[in-house]
Amino acid sequence: MSTVEELQKRVAELEAILKDKNDFTGSKREKIAEMSAEVVDSNPYSRLMALKRMGIVNNYEKIREYTVAVVGVGGVGSVTAEMLTRCGIGKLILFDYDKVELANMNRLFFQPHQAGLSKVEAAARTLSFINPDVVMETHNYNITTIDNFQHFMDRISEGGLNGGAVDLVLSCVDNFEARMAINVACNTLGQTWFESGVSENAVSGHIQLIIPGESACFACAPPLVVASNIDEKTLKKDGVCAASLPTTMGVVAGFLVQNTLKKLLNFGEVSWYLGYSALSDFFPKMKLRPNPTCEDSYCRARQKEFNEKPKPVVADVPAETIKEVHEDNEWGICLVDETSQDAEPETKNNLELVEGVRAAYTVPETCPTQGPTIEDTEVSLDELMKQMKSL
Amino acid sequence: MSTVEELQKRVAELEAILKDKNDFTGSKREKIAEMSAEVVDSNPYSRLMALKRMGIVNNYEKIREYTVAVVGVGGVGSVTAEMLTRCGIGKLILFDYDKVELANMNRLFFQPHQAGLSKVEAAARTLSFINPDVVMETHNYNITTIDNFQHFMDRISEGGLNGGAVDLVLSCVDNFEARMAINVACNTLGQTWFESGVSENAVSGHIQLIIPGESACFACAPPLVVASNIDEKTLKKDGVCAASLPTTMGVVAGFLVQNTLKKLLNFGEVSWYLGYSALSDFFPKMKLRPNPTCEDSYCRARQKEFNEKPKPVVADVPAETIKEVHEDNEWGICLVDETSQDAEPETKNNLELVEGVRAAYTVPETCPTQGPTIEDTEVSLDELMKQMKSL
Repeated sequence: MSTVEELQKRVAELEAILKDKNDFTGSKREKIAEMSAEVVDSNPYSRLMALKRMGIVNNYEKIREYTVAVVGVGGVGSVTAEMLTRCGIGKLILFDYDKVELANMNRLFFQPHQAGLSKVEAAARTLSFINPDVVMETHNYNITTIDNFQHFMDRISEGGLNGGAVDLVLSCVDNFEARMAINVACNTLGQTWFESGVSENAVSGHIQLIIPGESACFACAPPLVVASNIDEKTLKKDGVCAASLPTTMGVVAGFLVQNTLKKLLNFGEVSWYLGYSALSDFFPKMKLRPNPTCEDSYCRARQKEFNEKPKPVVADVPAETIKEVHEDNEWGICLVDETSQDAEPETKNNLELVEGVRAAYTVPETCPTQGPTIEDTEVSLDELMKQMKSL
Repeated sequence: MSTVEELQKRVAELEAILKDKNDFTGSKREKIAEMSAEVVDSNPYSRLMALKRMGIVNNYEKIREYTVAVVGVGGVGSVTAEMLTRCGIGKLILFDYDKVELANMNRLFFQPHQAGLSKVEAAARTLSFINPDVVMETHNYNITTIDNFQHFMDRISEGGLNGGAVDLVLSCVDNFEARMAINVACNTLGQTWFESGVSENAVSGHIQLIIPGESACFACAPPLVVASNIDEKTLKKDGVCAASLPTTMGVVAGFLVQNTLKKLLNFGEVSWYLGYSALSDFFPKMKLRPNPTCEDSYCRARQKEFNEKPKPVVADVPAETIKEVHEDNEWGICLVDETSQDAEPETKNNLELVEGVRAAYTVPETCPTQGPTIEDTEVSLDELMKQMKSL
């Protein structure tokens, strides 16, 4: 049995370790009942509520009513979850089956002492510590197995703060199979989501908004460049792995959450597709319309519903007014001039990419005239392809 | 005096707190003598060294020889320091005089339990824990006072790992005075640096490369939009504060560190000016040449040196070869066609910005024809101004 002296020494030692880490339980902040704009050093929401005074957001505090599901809590997903947590989102639902490894330390968020813990548990613990006001729900499983997929669908449709569907699903996964699973779930449920990804060579990435029936789904026209669909685990067995950088992943997470905030809080213009090519600081933007012959029958059903919906009458009104109408209408965030559609699907099959990056998809050659309709916002698709090729 | 039983209970309690936090000293990783590309879960550098196999970077491990000074460890600077730390930079020198507050919790990096600590100390502690291989030097002072400014200059010119100048200075400060101090120091020392900033309304930001004598300095032609030069502390007294978002700051930090990596490790194209307008996902790019009548005499001296330096002879060689020459030459990263310069300084005085954002600088009306020379890379300045106005 230890002596009093030895025990006192041990207590002092442990207290010193805790003090040194500045991680004492007593310093965790209390929950805050209501978001305030008061400018005091102790208010974690003052800089966010200032968005109202600056004329950017009308209703910042409404963020507390929203639920966002983040699928994949790796290099992009963990930073995405942290940004949403710091913004004071109402509820987060995190899905991942992986464990934290030291090999993940070249990306933001996780720390070496968390190696070996499940990503969702480690993330939820850190996030609750950063902002205890956010409701956290975690699922430590692979969404692509049959049982888990049904549970995943259930949580998307019933996991919202009000017991209904979540407000948005953010895909931050690193493989084709998981993206297709999210696509099937969201097409089935009519759930709006953002797809995101970074390339295997770590120097490009993208986000893509998918509103079932209104924009191209992942099976209609996936992004030009995504990470390879070879499983990381297979790669690692062969002694190779994809490259990754905290910069590219931080930028993609920033784009993803910024567009999430714009969509949920109704400000600015939500990008349908935004790419990032780090080597040349090039940012392709475009709109992708659904493929009428998409293989996913739920996608075609959502397209039918969307096409049959009465559209708002917009004519001869000033640009400012049109913008307001779009922001409030139930068909999404942007009305597109149908006359400006330039379908150039044939170029997709000729895509040449840098080593280590592959196109996720090629338009089937049997129906070249029925491929996805691509609309330009900034550059022509031809120009875009040229720039992609020149990387 | 406590009983043995009470003390044993206290020891168990403290051990449980530490265990729960998974923050036990024993789990901090050991230093790694040499960067390896080995693909094992325990290697924190495998995903970075994979950049070599992917053909992106020739010499990734050279990053360990470089020293970067980060001035300002707030919303942008802290994430910048974290990204560089995770990338395995050789040495970081951090400057900041501020303390962590709960009001900073809407940005990445700092956590509530660090409230009250100095930003540089809190940052260095977390960063050393994330990657003990990085050498950390911190200075908890305001660089703009006379004594500190001299010490700041000394550390920039002698703080490198080899006892010489640092390789790059990254400005992540939030006020005009500190930017001007960095500008004076870097012009005097001929030190290359990146300026960065986010707007008061939180929805735009930029980075700008400044190579004294070769590109415009901060006094020649500061960025179109920077945070107001009103001191945060003055603002807070009046019950108002600037807005900020973790998204915008994360994106700006990502751009800053990505371009830092490109510059230090010689890959891709380094952007001279890269802006980010979050409302429309618009990314202005341009090149700014120095103002021959810049008020800073050291800027003019550096311009004279640059102009008198013999330029490499580049004629009738394939584009690929030219690129190689530029990457290795001592005049920086890019040779510009002098015939393509379009000086349009007069439009700068007519800049109209969204509420809460102001231009940091207007070209003096006494010398309108001698303003900075602006070169286009992607859009014309006129077009850029139109897009800025339409925000």
